[in-house]
Amino acid sequence: MTGPETNQATRVLTVRDIEGGITAPGGFRASGVWCGIKREALDLALVVADRPASAAAVFTTNRVQAAPVSVSRDHLARSAGRARAIVVNSGCANACTGDAGLDVARGMAAHTAATVGCTSEEVLVASTGVIGVPLNLSSVRAGIDRAFQALGDGHAEAARAIMTTDVAPKERAVTVEVPGGLIRVGGMAKGAGMIEPMMATMIAVVTTDALVEPSVLQEALRRAADGTFNAISVDGECSTNDCVLALASGASGVSIDAGSIDSLVQALTAVCRPLALDIVRGGEGATKLLTITVSGATSDADARRCARAIANSLLVKTAVHGGDPNWGRLLAVAGRAGVTIDPARARVVVGSAVLFSDGGPHNDREPAAADHLAGSEVAVEVDLGTGRGSSATMWTCDLSAEYVRINADYRS
Amino acid sequence: MTGPETNQATRVLTVRDIEGGITAPGGFRASGVWCGIKREALDLALVVADRPASAAAVFTTNRVQAAPVSVSRDHLARSAGRARAIVVNSGCANACTGDAGLDVARGMAAHTAATVGCTSEEVLVASTGVIGVPLNLSSVRAGIDRAFQALGDGHAEAARAIMTTDVAPKERAVTVEVPGGLIRVGGMAKGAGMIEPMMATMIAVVTTDALVEPSVLQEALRRAADGTFNAISVDGECSTNDCVLALASGASGVSIDAGSIDSLVQALTAVCRPLALDIVRGGEGATKLLTITVSGATSDADARRCARAIANSLLVKTAVHGGDPNWGRLLAVAGRAGVTIDPARARVVVGSAVLFSDGGPHNDREPAAADHLAGSEVAVEVDLGTGRGSSATMWTCDLSAEYVRINADYRS
Repeated sequence: MTGPETNQATRVLTVRDIEGGITAPGGFRASGVWCGIKREALDLALVVADRPASAAAVFTTNRVQAAPVSVSRDHLARSAGRARAIVVNSGCANACTGDAGLDVARGMAAHTAATVGCTSEEVLVASTGVIGVPLNLSSVRAGIDRAFQALGDGHAEAARAIMTTDVAPKERAVTVEVPGGLIRVGGMAKGAGMIEPMMATMIAVVTTDALVEPSVLQEALRRAADGTFNAISVDGECSTNDCVLALASGASGVSIDAGSIDSLVQALTAVCRPLALDIVRGGEGATKLLTITVSGATSDADARRCARAIANSLLVKTAVHGGDPNWGRLLAVAGRAGVTIDPARARVVVGSAVLFSDGGPHNDREPAAADHLAGSEVAVEVDLGTGRGSSATMWTCDLSAEYVRINADYRS
Repeated sequence: MTGPETNQATRVLTVRDIEGGITAPGGFRASGVWCGIKREALDLALVVADRPASAAAVFTTNRVQAAPVSVSRDHLARSAGRARAIVVNSGCANACTGDAGLDVARGMAAHTAATVGCTSEEVLVASTGVIGVPLNLSSVRAGIDRAFQALGDGHAEAARAIMTTDVAPKERAVTVEVPGGLIRVGGMAKGAGMIEPMMATMIAVVTTDALVEPSVLQEALRRAADGTFNAISVDGECSTNDCVLALASGASGVSIDAGSIDSLVQALTAVCRPLALDIVRGGEGATKLLTITVSGATSDADARRCARAIANSLLVKTAVHGGDPNWGRLLAVAGRAGVTIDPARARVVVGSAVLFSDGGPHNDREPAAADHLAGSEVAVEVDLGTGRGSSATMWTCDLSAEYVRINADYRS
């Protein structure tokens, strides 16, 4: 998303990839263990900050929210943005489970707090997996005990323990030279797997050793998530459990305040964007990563709305899957997206081939566009032709018959 | 759509199916011919009223509108809702064709007017087929000449001539006992076929022998379309060419005015609803007709918005395809639809099995729901739990791997 925020970032910071995932930044330990929710795979991750860390979160906007989402939101408010630990289980979403589910989520936080040595409000919880099935609290408690014993640089195990049907773990870490010095940011995410029924989809945990107040961390996380996790779509669905949780330990001693927040947004984005794109690449049945840019819009909101409509268009996603430079579908979606468009001045570009401009098609360029679409990383752009400069970028994957098979035929 | 309008209809009228399609009502002749746009199939339909008829239309809301849509809208305004003829070609949408396309659409109307003996403004035009390809006006002119020679009770040929990739022609006719006597309504439609690239989708023509002013016909058509053609979705796409055109000849002598408009809405609905459901049944790759009811909403707009979100949810449509009573997906969509919902009071019903209520699941009822979903005509209901009475109904089809194959692999 190219919004006014990112335009304000005056300098591009030096970012270097490093190993270490969520334990790359100083001040954090992590582990991943098996506690019996899944049959035979890691299913509980614990992240602990050595000292109370600044904490921030971005939650699903779905009005049906899973119990752990309600509990984490509540804890973050009560603790005024401080946390010592994050505990995440996979295999069961603890969603649509009523008051009993809320009790389990609170119990999960309380047991973590007692084990780590903090208050319940200093623990954030998340769950991912099947909706509508009770989460076994005694299994979770045993898992927390075991995870606490295992705490260390277990970023890889933690990243595995939050997977549901992801084909691979997703983690990243970077160093970023911000004005005050070098900070580290690490992250892990689980993606949009729905091979099993009713999986609640996206969860990410981000850590940093920057020294930052909770309010600044929250604002930076919101902005970073807007341009990354909130700019991807696999199938247009928004789950009951989606959340991005962030902790800042301050261990680097490098201070970031409201005046230097842009550098933190860039640093968080450096981890969140590749994680978000990994989620799309790992989308169910996906064979291609599609970058959609909408330009020439009268507002950022229009640009984003149109990009989202294209990202969720079945006809666009199937055309991309088939490698078909079907510019008419892109233009038709832009037309129905409810945004200002001037069809006489609009442009449709696939790869670098302008297939529609000045009110008419250039069908002779379709072979070049088809060549581009044969690749695994493809790009389309729609200029709405309003003569204004707002633009937005979203990422999605193609729609394959495999997606339908995964989501329709799981019982057979 | 159960809106305030239909609730106001105080009596249910007696409706009887009859043969005859669009020529069942008195005062109309029709024909369907081949003029060379398609390789070897009827591709031009002509409907002529013996005398100037009241005319009304509902057009696509897509901001990228095909040339015939612009021309018909213009003609309807200039003629103050009077028309003698409707001419429809298939095989070429005449969309995204610039000023040249507008000239062709105007030429199509002008030639029809000269042939029939009326003004250009008294002719409505529609096109359906491939986007971005020029429509050959001389072929169309020759087709109009041939169609004029063939005029008669050719409703069946006309219904065939507007097909693109529809598996079967879609037509209906009824008699309706309105307060003033017996009227007839006939209709034909072409559906959401996208087997070929960039097909512009839905077109319907409705005729009646009721005696009705254009303004009343327009209002009745709008209301009938809202509850039928605007309440269906195959894939959430809105084409550049969609339109519903209606003509009223007055041949029955039965007068309908603003005071008795509800009876005309019912009469038009009696033809439009089965045509709309035929479009869904004939949706690409469809194996099931899904009726979605959203109740307990705080407003009709909320009810409709939620029903539309469910109708366009990939996860719901794939679950229905797989016969999976996946209530969690229905609830998750209702939660993300941007409508007021009380999850603690919401209910999800599949067939007659209540799978979620009082904040918790009833997973023991899933087998009954699965039995229901094994059929070809299935129903789901989501009560948003707000305690308010607004509701809406939409119809869609399941999403199959065949849909993806049709829309992705047409080149191979």
